[in-house]
Amino acid sequence: MTHVKPGQPHPPVRLIGAGPGDPELLTLKAVRALGEAEVVLVDDLVNPEILAHCPQARLVRVGKRGGCRSTPQDFIQRLMLRYARQGRRVARLKGGDPCVFGRGGEEQQWLARHGVACEIINGITSGLAAATDCGIPLTLRGVARAVTLVTAHTEDDSAPDWKALAASGATLVVYMGVATLPATRGHLLAAGMAPATPVAMIERASLPAQRHCVSSLAAMEDDARAFGLRSPAVLVIGDVAAWARAQETRADLRASA
Amino acid sequence: MTHVKPGQPHPPVRLIGAGPGDPELLTLKAVRALGEAEVVLVDDLVNPEILAHCPQARLVRVGKRGGCRSTPQDFIQRLMLRYARQGRRVARLKGGDPCVFGRGGEEQQWLARHGVACEIINGITSGLAAATDCGIPLTLRGVARAVTLVTAHTEDDSAPDWKALAASGATLVVYMGVATLPATRGHLLAAGMAPATPVAMIERASLPAQRHCVSSLAAMEDDARAFGLRSPAVLVIGDVAAWARAQETRADLRASA
Repeated sequence: MTHVKPGQPHPPVRLIGAGPGDPELLTLKAVRALGEAEVVLVDDLVNPEILAHCPQARLVRVGKRGGCRSTPQDFIQRLMLRYARQGRRVARLKGGDPCVFGRGGEEQQWLARHGVACEIINGITSGLAAATDCGIPLTLRGVARAVTLVTAHTEDDSAPDWKALAASGATLVVYMGVATLPATRGHLLAAGMAPATPVAMIERASLPAQRHCVSSLAAMEDDARAFGLRSPAVLVIGDVAAWARAQETRADLRASA
Repeated sequence: MTHVKPGQPHPPVRLIGAGPGDPELLTLKAVRALGEAEVVLVDDLVNPEILAHCPQARLVRVGKRGGCRSTPQDFIQRLMLRYARQGRRVARLKGGDPCVFGRGGEEQQWLARHGVACEIINGITSGLAAATDCGIPLTLRGVARAVTLVTAHTEDDSAPDWKALAASGATLVVYMGVATLPATRGHLLAAGMAPATPVAMIERASLPAQRHCVSSLAAMEDDARAFGLRSPAVLVIGDVAAWARAQETRADLRASA
């Protein structure tokens, strides 16, 4: 695992954070890396507009969208390895940040075990953009002095320690939380979190089609259903969620577009 | 508080995340916003190289470095307001992300109370870059399924609920943690966190002078002293910290520079 600085040789593989969706939330480093890539493996949730930065590259679409048919992780890793061993400059473009629920660490370690160096380029993580997009500061003096990023979705059926998370007082940002929303609500209520705790549910953070719904822990399941909340979405649970701007409808968004 | 999309009019004030330090970790949106600003209020911890993106702007240095003389928060807010009321396009450039221990929410709310709209532009938060920089994935399947960003430093002497945070199993990323390192260690040990829990202490994340030290919860105070750990630094506490590359010395860094 190398730490590559600008001006140093290109590592065989780069895992690049594409950010939450807005093409302007890409970093300068990601733009440079895309321009230097020969093969780019693109995740499902990456905004296609971002690919304008790598017109020279061969694009390989690999998807891991929750609940749909997707390319197995093992196949994606072998593909990266194969291209790297052919001497191609490989980039893997992932939504958000590669190391926050992005399997970046796992892929970096797997490649290292196969003798292939890999650089990770950070991206704006979706939970952060989602909160900012609807007016919520994740930390706020006197209200929230910590923020926890957590995913409710797992392949191994393990669960976060909701009881400790509820007790911590940290703002909770739940990634990939739509399918497990009723369970998350149940766990947090059982853990003693106040039913009136503010909740914001944000769909398609940072994109023009972003919309959000403001609710409470008690009402979030009903409100999500009425709102028609769909993936990709992020839940922000905690007192800071009360700072969310009034809910926007699709019509509001069309009017302001 | 407005949600401004590209192509819409410039809001009176923008709070811009400058990212952790590496000028390449700035977003395209931040670069555009800097180029459009007439007055830029610059925080202490912002890398001066980033100011190359706003040669047209009047620069006002405002600092809030921990422990040193710094510009009072109230004065900075009034300065933003004064320039905004003069009709100037004001940008405030902050290290990391404005809404993660950056007072972005506070300033946005204060400006809103004074009738001034303010857009927040996310940046890569330092804790994320610090971990990535030394090879640590903040989340890793089977090891850490949540990550908590927390600051030990507060003006109101309130403390995080270390007991709940320790119990949560989330990776802990402690911002501005150098001065309070002995206290943090004591709180986490008292909360029952294993003394052997891996800890990485990362100084000047993402900059060429970045260096880090790998330790354990029990040994972190002694090791930080021996290492000469200085602000700005981030602590990563949890099993994923074991993934940090072997400690680099200043000599290593000089050799690779």
